[in-house]
Amino acid sequence: MVERRKPIPVQEAVDKVMALSYEGSTELISLSESDGRHLSEDVKADHDVPPFDRSPYDGFAIRSVDTYNAGQDSPIELEVIEEIGAGTVATKIPEANQAIRIMTGAPIPEGTDAVIMLELVQELQVEAQHFIKIKRRVKKGDNLSLQGEDTRKGTILVEKGSIITPGVKALLATFGYAKVPVAVKPDVGIFATGTELLDPEEALEPGKIRNSNSPMIEGQVKAAGANPLYFGKLDDDFETCFTSVQQALEKVDLLITTGGVSVGDYDYLPAIYEKLGATVLFNKVGMRPGSVTTVAEWNGKLLFGLSGNPSACFVGFELFARPILKRALFSQYPYRMKSMGTLLTDFPKPNPFTRFVRCRTEEREGRIYVKPTGLDKSGSVTSLAEANAFAVLPGGTRGYKSGDLVDLIHLRDGGSDYL
Amino acid sequence: MVERRKPIPVQEAVDKVMALSYEGSTELISLSESDGRHLSEDVKADHDVPPFDRSPYDGFAIRSVDTYNAGQDSPIELEVIEEIGAGTVATKIPEANQAIRIMTGAPIPEGTDAVIMLELVQELQVEAQHFIKIKRRVKKGDNLSLQGEDTRKGTILVEKGSIITPGVKALLATFGYAKVPVAVKPDVGIFATGTELLDPEEALEPGKIRNSNSPMIEGQVKAAGANPLYFGKLDDDFETCFTSVQQALEKVDLLITTGGVSVGDYDYLPAIYEKLGATVLFNKVGMRPGSVTTVAEWNGKLLFGLSGNPSACFVGFELFARPILKRALFSQYPYRMKSMGTLLTDFPKPNPFTRFVRCRTEEREGRIYVKPTGLDKSGSVTSLAEANAFAVLPGGTRGYKSGDLVDLIHLRDGGSDYL
Repeated sequence: MVERRKPIPVQEAVDKVMALSYEGSTELISLSESDGRHLSEDVKADHDVPPFDRSPYDGFAIRSVDTYNAGQDSPIELEVIEEIGAGTVATKIPEANQAIRIMTGAPIPEGTDAVIMLELVQELQVEAQHFIKIKRRVKKGDNLSLQGEDTRKGTILVEKGSIITPGVKALLATFGYAKVPVAVKPDVGIFATGTELLDPEEALEPGKIRNSNSPMIEGQVKAAGANPLYFGKLDDDFETCFTSVQQALEKVDLLITTGGVSVGDYDYLPAIYEKLGATVLFNKVGMRPGSVTTVAEWNGKLLFGLSGNPSACFVGFELFARPILKRALFSQYPYRMKSMGTLLTDFPKPNPFTRFVRCRTEEREGRIYVKPTGLDKSGSVTSLAEANAFAVLPGGTRGYKSGDLVDLIHLRDGGSDYL
Repeated sequence: MVERRKPIPVQEAVDKVMALSYEGSTELISLSESDGRHLSEDVKADHDVPPFDRSPYDGFAIRSVDTYNAGQDSPIELEVIEEIGAGTVATKIPEANQAIRIMTGAPIPEGTDAVIMLELVQELQVEAQHFIKIKRRVKKGDNLSLQGEDTRKGTILVEKGSIITPGVKALLATFGYAKVPVAVKPDVGIFATGTELLDPEEALEPGKIRNSNSPMIEGQVKAAGANPLYFGKLDDDFETCFTSVQQALEKVDLLITTGGVSVGDYDYLPAIYEKLGATVLFNKVGMRPGSVTTVAEWNGKLLFGLSGNPSACFVGFELFARPILKRALFSQYPYRMKSMGTLLTDFPKPNPFTRFVRCRTEEREGRIYVKPTGLDKSGSVTSLAEANAFAVLPGGTRGYKSGDLVDLIHLRDGGSDYL
């Protein structure tokens, strides 16, 4: 009467999803709109940086040989024969005891081999002539930014799939990417199921709760770099429900439903997958929360049946939907960042399944500590608002205690909101 | 002839900026557009969560007393008198040896005090009657999600100034925020200065480089939660330049210029501040890179004169402009996250000024390690693309070595791209 489902291990479930062949595509957009998008090609240097030897300071371009005898008690004087700003090229070539006034970023004039900073000279005006007095020896090559010292032409600067952060944007501008090749944002459809669900603007009624999963998943989809399309609540009637799912699949790359995946009498999703002829990859995972997560594939489209419990829904998206979206965005690192942290709380109760405990990390003296954000019940929504990581507690016969070093899955990719 | 500027310590410079009275304002937007915005009010629970005692599982609501004698060898039978889904309320009250079929999320029926999971019973159909067989004793309160166990009505759930993450969005939906009060995005004007600058679409010329600072600052402004307005390059002519700045100040809350703040002959910004009658808070900071950063205030508008060197420009924005923008967005934590990490590289050369070294962090076995991303020259753009933190190396007479624990400023706020 009741379907008995066999749970599969979390890693196996992730691997099954990632074995699907769903791929992304590419488009060209303007540099100014590119923040936060994923590059769909490697960025290569089309020229050396700096593109020429240049001055990193305001000062004077000199011939170092002229300062050979300069010292505190034996200043030397050089005649300033020209003045160049950034963006201009010197027209004269200094001879013995001549110098050129040079601004930050300007190319080093021919015939000179060092720069002395403005602050280190004394300027003199003798009628129409301009001189500088120098009281120290300057070495050949002093204060030069050399051509190519930052980047050599041809270097791969940023890998395909990287997120366009402010630093990456600076590189794109430097190398003339007025248009940037980026991954097209996957379209992700969202349906809520559950007759108990009210919209945020509706007043509460006995037995009913507001639908928090759809706005949350919408946010998770955006944070992953994809484009959410909310289709509303699925109807109670099976046929209407089936038609809605079928129509939605025409418009999206990936379809997420929340709720309706349990073994209860009102849980239509399994029947919908069957009627579609979709291949179900798994319908139960050995984890808490989120054990009833179902993933299916139909005609190159992916169907994610996430639990109706907010925390289970959140975890299900992060573990199973996000990585394949990231891969379609060409990311080389589609998984959330993993590391380890020291527990600040006991978890005395053993659990047969792997737990993903919503936590907040703290960093002290170069170490990472972690504590749970409130109740660890799968229905809890408040704990999600504060969590920045999951502590991963493998299932077994023993609990965990404060001081244990455990695996963490951070709710970020690379350690920066710029990455 | 040359203005001698007195550098002030970094912390003093930050404090001077934060002492300015620039404040943010508030607006109401729809929940679905609210991702990544800053709350302008505390979010409070307007009802208990769960709002009623409910079932966390699909199963049967029972009277625990009926199972008192149940065991592996002494199963008991209960008659199922009604079936309720989530969102519906039972119409019957079970008497001795009666149960109600209940779905996940449905309210616990009057007269029952526990739930037994679907998987743990055997269902029997005897003509029109429906029975369940139970082989274990169920305790009062088993499998109930109690009213208010997640959140009590009146609790402050999320503080004013917090970023709306997917988890926060779930809370907003739960508590009926169809419209959300958020901070208005500050308008931040951006000017580039420098005759050597080309736009990304222009071909390279001798002595010229492409303007990478403006697109980068645009990205940093967006990442901070504000609205960038790029006004182009400032003209070489002082009067035109002055008029452009004056007109821009009418349209923005904060004006950023890159370049033109040194003591060179083409650096107009100091003269513009003077002609405006702006109060210069500081024009030199004891730090590398970014020592020539200038901040001024005029008529409630803030002027940030950042260095033209990309890395110095980047650091100047992060240290001085971002925190006051975050405060105008009501953030309780306007500064970047600080922690400590262990150096993986030597920095043998002492430096009289505090260095902000662009670094990438690594986490291993619960500890944070840090290494520089390429050259630490202030003109380097490639190092910015990979950095996720600054290592802060205070100035002094000694260098630093691999293994030293140093302060870090992470390029993120709270440890999550959801925060």
